[in-house]
Amino acid sequence: MELVATEELAINFEDVRAAHHRLAGVIHQTPVLTSRALDEWIGARVFLKAESFQRTGSFKFRGAYNAVSQLPRELRSGGVVAFSSGNHAQAVALAARLLDVPAAIVMPEDAPPTKLAATSGYGAEVITYDRYQANRAEIAAAIATDRGATLIPPYDHPHVIAGNGTTALDLLDEVGELDQLVVCLGGGGLLAGSATAARGLYPTIDVIGIEPAAGDDWARSYAAGKRVALTEVPVTIADGQQTQAPGLLTWPIARRLVGSIAVVTDDEIRAAMAFLFERLKIVVEPSGASSFAAVLAGKVDVAGKRVGVTISGGNIGLDQFMRVMRGGQ
Amino acid sequence: MELVATEELAINFEDVRAAHHRLAGVIHQTPVLTSRALDEWIGARVFLKAESFQRTGSFKFRGAYNAVSQLPRELRSGGVVAFSSGNHAQAVALAARLLDVPAAIVMPEDAPPTKLAATSGYGAEVITYDRYQANRAEIAAAIATDRGATLIPPYDHPHVIAGNGTTALDLLDEVGELDQLVVCLGGGGLLAGSATAARGLYPTIDVIGIEPAAGDDWARSYAAGKRVALTEVPVTIADGQQTQAPGLLTWPIARRLVGSIAVVTDDEIRAAMAFLFERLKIVVEPSGASSFAAVLAGKVDVAGKRVGVTISGGNIGLDQFMRVMRGGQ
Repeated sequence: MELVATEELAINFEDVRAAHHRLAGVIHQTPVLTSRALDEWIGARVFLKAESFQRTGSFKFRGAYNAVSQLPRELRSGGVVAFSSGNHAQAVALAARLLDVPAAIVMPEDAPPTKLAATSGYGAEVITYDRYQANRAEIAAAIATDRGATLIPPYDHPHVIAGNGTTALDLLDEVGELDQLVVCLGGGGLLAGSATAARGLYPTIDVIGIEPAAGDDWARSYAAGKRVALTEVPVTIADGQQTQAPGLLTWPIARRLVGSIAVVTDDEIRAAMAFLFERLKIVVEPSGASSFAAVLAGKVDVAGKRVGVTISGGNIGLDQFMRVMRGGQ
Repeated sequence: MELVATEELAINFEDVRAAHHRLAGVIHQTPVLTSRALDEWIGARVFLKAESFQRTGSFKFRGAYNAVSQLPRELRSGGVVAFSSGNHAQAVALAARLLDVPAAIVMPEDAPPTKLAATSGYGAEVITYDRYQANRAEIAAAIATDRGATLIPPYDHPHVIAGNGTTALDLLDEVGELDQLVVCLGGGGLLAGSATAARGLYPTIDVIGIEPAAGDDWARSYAAGKRVALTEVPVTIADGQQTQAPGLLTWPIARRLVGSIAVVTDDEIRAAMAFLFERLKIVVEPSGASSFAAVLAGKVDVAGKRVGVTISGGNIGLDQFMRVMRGGQ
């Protein structure tokens, strides 16, 4: 058994524990779903942590609230700014409203309408841009400079990563030790946080990250042994996983604590969404179903194991859902 | 306050309590869902009891298990037989399997494919018929006579009604006193059982039954003060609520304990299904959404009240869901 030393990483297990206390009474205790039919079919014991039922519809609220709640008093009046393809936007918007902090959110103009509307609905100012042309990070940074607002990054921030890690803490607190933890992966905030939490509790648990095949920056980076960037924005139904490179803070954590990365195709994600719809009766967005897609498609060897799977979000409009399930984007 | 005397009815509160003990450890503790956005919008506090997450995907498992588990030992080898448009079929099939009793299920040949497949999947023998031609009750009765099997009716049976009533007991145990309880209504098993449980706990709670406008046998019966039968099978997307007359046992219970009946159109049910999909992230079948449809469409005066709403089932295939949401049957 390898000893895990996390001292020089962006966060450690105690940061996740502290985030857990901070979030108590604010986040929803989301259900852990199981299916006897699924278990019999794949020959494993699967525990689905349904963060689709989290406030704002995804795990992102955990990280956002943990970050905004630690904003120093003197910075609060300047507000917060965030850039996001959707779920981080809603998460920061609600966290800011609950903490009485102004929020400006930079979102791609082609983000799902339900996500744009929900973000406005939480009282945030929404600023849109063309994601195939402009650099969202630069836009957000300019707003931060102009207004004295504090940028809340979608994943590369210790408080965001630690907050997101409470997802795994809650799962493991409920179901006990697991052999494997399969986690959705975009920028790596959920993966890095979850790995820190899971390996902190159970040092031998095998943590696996799942990303869309069209946006395999993490798989390529693992193969190269260093951060590799894709040259174009990945085209995939998994709109929350269109990142082009591993995060600066999340990468070293994952390299230390995450055993491997697997990829899933859009059709494998569709099959997972259909299974979750028909058998589990839950609505899951493409990115949120990617982890389960890997299990269902046999991309992860789960035979005979106790496996935790994060269902990271459920924010998808009915029209988009039907379009995606008919084979579209 | 009117005193409630239930002595001469098919079941009383103690029957529901006894069913509750019988079902403990066998049924799922289904979640009670809430939505701040919904509450703000309609000006009430709504508690959705999501029986879509019950074993076999609907509340029907409660009644079926309560009935099959009380089958006398000498009748078990003859097995059980049931007729159902779907959810009762799956419920009896699983209850029988868990209790090691053979089951034959009479189902309409146009029942949703997922329901037919699921019933076979639980190990039951499925016998189909044309529901616009044949009388399912007669078919089931003939099988019962031929095989020495015991008929488990979908609603007109004291054990079924009492078992179904535990839905309300579980909801009220979790959320405490409510002003109103809004319940999906087909044959009336869930309504009669829930009213017995709810009024047993809180004598002044207002229990309301909801049925599709196309199949308004209960509303007509309430208006007439006696059981009225529709001459044709109602055509509605709510395939679990196509009954043509109130049940013989459920009717007197409802008349005593249920204040009123309201009806909803198929389009109101569609709107409710879409809301539950997009905002609550849950998959609900048309019949299961009818109660919530009445609340959402303003068919029930909920202003300022604490309102319980049963979401009675979630068994709908993806293809059927998309067809229904596009305006079809």
